[in-house]
Amino acid sequence: MRNSTRSQVDPFIVMDVLESARRAEEAGRHIVHMEIGQPSTGAPAGARQALAGALDEGAMGYTVALGLPALRQRIARLYGEWYNVDLNPNRVVVTSGSSAGFILAFTSLFDTGDRVGIGAPGYPSYRQILRALGLEPVDIPTAPENRYQPVPADLIGRSLRGLMVASPSNPAGTMLNRTDLTALIEASETHGASFISDEIYHGIEYDKKAVSAVEISDDVYVINSFSKYFSMTGWRVGWMVVPEDHVRVLERIAQNMFICAPHASQVAALHALECGDELQGNLAVYAQNRALLLDGLPKAGFDRIAPPDGAFYVYADVSELTDDSRALAADILDEAGVAVTPGLDFDPARGNSTLRFSYAGSSADIAEGLDRLTRYMHAHFPERF
Amino acid sequence: MRNSTRSQVDPFIVMDVLESARRAEEAGRHIVHMEIGQPSTGAPAGARQALAGALDEGAMGYTVALGLPALRQRIARLYGEWYNVDLNPNRVVVTSGSSAGFILAFTSLFDTGDRVGIGAPGYPSYRQILRALGLEPVDIPTAPENRYQPVPADLIGRSLRGLMVASPSNPAGTMLNRTDLTALIEASETHGASFISDEIYHGIEYDKKAVSAVEISDDVYVINSFSKYFSMTGWRVGWMVVPEDHVRVLERIAQNMFICAPHASQVAALHALECGDELQGNLAVYAQNRALLLDGLPKAGFDRIAPPDGAFYVYADVSELTDDSRALAADILDEAGVAVTPGLDFDPARGNSTLRFSYAGSSADIAEGLDRLTRYMHAHFPERF
Repeated sequence: MRNSTRSQVDPFIVMDVLESARRAEEAGRHIVHMEIGQPSTGAPAGARQALAGALDEGAMGYTVALGLPALRQRIARLYGEWYNVDLNPNRVVVTSGSSAGFILAFTSLFDTGDRVGIGAPGYPSYRQILRALGLEPVDIPTAPENRYQPVPADLIGRSLRGLMVASPSNPAGTMLNRTDLTALIEASETHGASFISDEIYHGIEYDKKAVSAVEISDDVYVINSFSKYFSMTGWRVGWMVVPEDHVRVLERIAQNMFICAPHASQVAALHALECGDELQGNLAVYAQNRALLLDGLPKAGFDRIAPPDGAFYVYADVSELTDDSRALAADILDEAGVAVTPGLDFDPARGNSTLRFSYAGSSADIAEGLDRLTRYMHAHFPERF
Repeated sequence: MRNSTRSQVDPFIVMDVLESARRAEEAGRHIVHMEIGQPSTGAPAGARQALAGALDEGAMGYTVALGLPALRQRIARLYGEWYNVDLNPNRVVVTSGSSAGFILAFTSLFDTGDRVGIGAPGYPSYRQILRALGLEPVDIPTAPENRYQPVPADLIGRSLRGLMVASPSNPAGTMLNRTDLTALIEASETHGASFISDEIYHGIEYDKKAVSAVEISDDVYVINSFSKYFSMTGWRVGWMVVPEDHVRVLERIAQNMFICAPHASQVAALHALECGDELQGNLAVYAQNRALLLDGLPKAGFDRIAPPDGAFYVYADVSELTDDSRALAADILDEAGVAVTPGLDFDPARGNSTLRFSYAGSSADIAEGLDRLTRYMHAHFPERF
């Protein structure tokens, strides 16, 4: 049996880092993990307790494809709480994580060969999922002066059928403000590109609130998840908000491709929505970690960074240090015992001169990581001090 | 925004039945559910207890894409227990239910426009998932005299790049014996078609054990799930067995398209594998229900049935009663209060003269359903008695 062409997905470079870190730990070394894109915390206690109580109550069979009605209603209410938007629960589609959201959105909107714009740097799986579905990802190189976000002019001459935007973004953590997001949505409409807003990091924001695309237009797809703010990565549950006349189409695709999101995870998610205190506690840790890094990284010689508005990443331009970020990350792991992510996963063209630092861990870990990075930089790049 | 062409998925006809049944129940009527394709039982007690105990232990973040190593190893051991096959755990890929298994298999093996053979009648989502991925499903009409399974001659002249087979099948519950399965695998190889074996109903078998494709060849894809025998539909966890040199490719696709199967479901599944007593108890109920139907359905006038070897369905040819199975199912629901599935979902061309009866419910329900069906048939088709 031979594999298809569409199955030839690029490997994640960060997997090499993870494997090296694992080997180092196996050999007895202590590694600080600043490569990982998930909270170190689990699902909120209230969610776990509610699920434990529900485990013996019903058979927990398939739910309807669009998700438990109570969960769809509660998510709709969240749009009132977060954005002051009165959202029809019927527009909410519960998904098996944002991963399923991408598959459903791309399937619902695009046909073979359609060109879909994605910002570079960006979440690597956008590109790979598009390719796996026989669609064409189109990299849009974004600029530090635009805070690593696409701009309306990027739509010109690219013949895009879709535009995928993330705010706060991964890896840069930068947000689009209301004016810029509005301009992008309008430009997409003008150019006939369906607008998909990845809002998975909403709720993890620092100075100002993230703006949702549904505040601006009903004619967009929003993809979100319980993985990040709600600290439920492994539960594989998320949601979409879609135009009302797309709900039936998505229901049919979801029935066939997924049947439903995991029932137990939907129960846990429903109760996670009531765990604000614990979740705000997690957020306070991220905020503290962010402050540590925004102060410490420049002092350690990583001074070309865009301060993140949200998420839990700092993206650093290290072009003055190297043109081989993979080798630099390997050396930092080897010498300093800190795992960081080379930028190549996020930006194949320019990621050879960038690193991503995650601060999703504990503050003690981040402080220790910063100490080690500082010592490493003093030893290897003394000319910067 | 407009929808893609590939998103135009056929609706499930059974959804109309379900909706009518729901309305009837809302109006106070008692309905016997013989339309549902899932066990009425929940996950085994041992699985639920183990999960409840694990909920507060770790963060339950992402697992590695191929699944928890302990689960992959335990599934490999199942192949020793069930088939006396010594399976390398590395060939096991844990998936988010068989649904994800289909997406992963089709993506790994086929490119845009590739033709993939599926038996008719068959599980409707094969067709819809293939279409959603830009592939071409090719219906292979199967014959009652071949027990509704494809035969080697079906590969001739169809230019198939893949052949999808289910044994026990849905909706007929018929199995391929070792000779016939071997012949199909060999014919597929001869014709350059990748062979995919849907073994989701393995374990639910009556007179003889189902044969797995891995007993016959290493160069096949097997798709299985914890949904049916292990009674865990809503948990969305399943697995594939793939050729060793396909594991890396599937790992990369799975990392990007799914990240991982739900962590909590993987924990529950691991322990479900040790719940043999409870699961054999479920099986005894299906066996009793099957005996009830095989005795009672012919007496009720549904005498053109292929006795099922496995699964929990009876597929009946009702061409002597109607050429509109949808209307017949609606009438049976309306008059007799029994929900059954018209065959059109499984066989768009010939399903207008077939019905599927599911016996996944309790024996009391099945007995009551049979009584009602018998009365209905005497009232409406007295000439058959």
